[in-house]
Amino acid sequence: MATRFVKNPHLASLEDDMLFHIGISGSSELSKTFGDVKFVCMGGSTNRMRQFAKYLKQQLKPYLEISDDEDPKNLSTSDRYVLYKVGPVLAINHGIGIPSLMVILHETLKLLHHAGAEGVSFFRTGTSGGLGLKAGTVVLTTTAMNALLEPYHEQVILGKVTKFPASLDDKLKEDLMQCSDGIPTAEGKTMCTNDFYEGQGRLDGAFCEYTLNDKLDFLNKAYSLGVRNIEMESVCFAAMCKRACVPAAILCVTLLDRLNGDQVHLTPAEHEEFQARPQRIVTAYIKKYLAAREMEKQSRPTKRPKAD
Amino acid sequence: MATRFVKNPHLASLEDDMLFHIGISGSSELSKTFGDVKFVCMGGSTNRMRQFAKYLKQQLKPYLEISDDEDPKNLSTSDRYVLYKVGPVLAINHGIGIPSLMVILHETLKLLHHAGAEGVSFFRTGTSGGLGLKAGTVVLTTTAMNALLEPYHEQVILGKVTKFPASLDDKLKEDLMQCSDGIPTAEGKTMCTNDFYEGQGRLDGAFCEYTLNDKLDFLNKAYSLGVRNIEMESVCFAAMCKRACVPAAILCVTLLDRLNGDQVHLTPAEHEEFQARPQRIVTAYIKKYLAAREMEKQSRPTKRPKAD
Repeated sequence: MATRFVKNPHLASLEDDMLFHIGISGSSELSKTFGDVKFVCMGGSTNRMRQFAKYLKQQLKPYLEISDDEDPKNLSTSDRYVLYKVGPVLAINHGIGIPSLMVILHETLKLLHHAGAEGVSFFRTGTSGGLGLKAGTVVLTTTAMNALLEPYHEQVILGKVTKFPASLDDKLKEDLMQCSDGIPTAEGKTMCTNDFYEGQGRLDGAFCEYTLNDKLDFLNKAYSLGVRNIEMESVCFAAMCKRACVPAAILCVTLLDRLNGDQVHLTPAEHEEFQARPQRIVTAYIKKYLAAREMEKQSRPTKRPKAD
Repeated sequence: MATRFVKNPHLASLEDDMLFHIGISGSSELSKTFGDVKFVCMGGSTNRMRQFAKYLKQQLKPYLEISDDEDPKNLSTSDRYVLYKVGPVLAINHGIGIPSLMVILHETLKLLHHAGAEGVSFFRTGTSGGLGLKAGTVVLTTTAMNALLEPYHEQVILGKVTKFPASLDDKLKEDLMQCSDGIPTAEGKTMCTNDFYEGQGRLDGAFCEYTLNDKLDFLNKAYSLGVRNIEMESVCFAAMCKRACVPAAILCVTLLDRLNGDQVHLTPAEHEEFQARPQRIVTAYIKKYLAAREMEKQSRPTKRPKAD
């Protein structure tokens, strides 16, 4: 699958493509800063992505020519999203839910297109409610599903409903699985909803017009179809990456087993440790890539000067 | 319409209702801090709400017993949302799009329910793309529409599609209109979409498979149905407030006329001034309320001591 990023003939005729929600101008100048990007890692919250960027910098130091000890700098000039660059990695938050994700995914894909980046993989790391799994398990998504338990993302374009398939890259998932290093993992389908409360069958929202039995019937149905966790961005993340022809993976840790309850009961330390798990797996994968690149460089024969 | 906030029989049996995304425990203790709330003002971005809270404090000082000059403190302990309280006003950001709004709206309604607040009005202030209006116009929404141009909010609950009507409070809109004080305003329907790019017929997203003519046909159709601006939260905001039986209004300033283009061309100073306009109208309305409350207090006859 060749990297493409965008599919929009109108972009070429734009004088200056302002990436509005990160406050970055989409000129060809972007290649200097972003031309070498190979990995885009997205997650919900700004703090979590800042911490991740810091962790990445510390972990990737041996492989990159990084001399300073400063914290990575947020390159977004708006307060909507943060965007950090650490070597070949972009770490970006996407907020909560599909619309917030779509805005930043459109702009990230355009950024990489303008920068002329190549061979880029996308990862969403996040938190989720699990189904039949111990809290703290990282679910690697096989296929994302919408709230109707269908494997596609529905979008309304010019007043018409359009459906985009939401499967993910099998090879990338397998490779990530190899990097789990003791972290409990599972494979499964991920259900994506637009609402955290009624949308996920919780009994503790402002509104609830169903019973505990109705809820359990629905969650058990999802489980029987192979769903192992529930969150709020996967189906769109998978579908947009597929449209952009970029390999993508989704790794979300479960904070609770939804078959047993609705509220999260973790200590702040547990919460912190759990939500770092998907990021640790992705970091291990990136380190493996950088080590292999290093090896390849070293084993390449020295070029002989050409004879005139 | 009596204030109700929540409609969920399960809430009463919860031992401790943790409002997860603002990190506040929903105990009855909340009445001390939040029992006197009369206005909830929501907007997209965290910075904008911080500035608004600061502006509110300065503007409401003459009516409230505020002695210090400190900036209002963010009462949310998560990095997902900010929550400021200035006298009887809550200022809260909702992020981008319906799912992000729903999370915080569920939790705000539960907060007010637990606090035993009464007679609360809800406002969404924000930015939008206009249709046939000069940039800088504040649109007061009559009815919100979904991306299919229908006047209701669609939600998937336990795998079933449910529709909730999305009309707003006429009286509140009229009263706000009286507080515009020279700011250009218009009334009209507001279209709400889940995507900023293809969802709103833009030609400058990562993907675009339609022509300029297709786009204009769609926007002109929306205009002919009475739509005057487009944003990403209105239809859900209106529908959830209606379900909660709280009067609600939506005021969004237009940053451009979408019939003329897609990209925003404003100076930072214009952008700043435009996005403060809806908040200035709401502040003027709240000042009017507080002035009337003051008058009422002063004109109330002094109670005679009861004879034993």
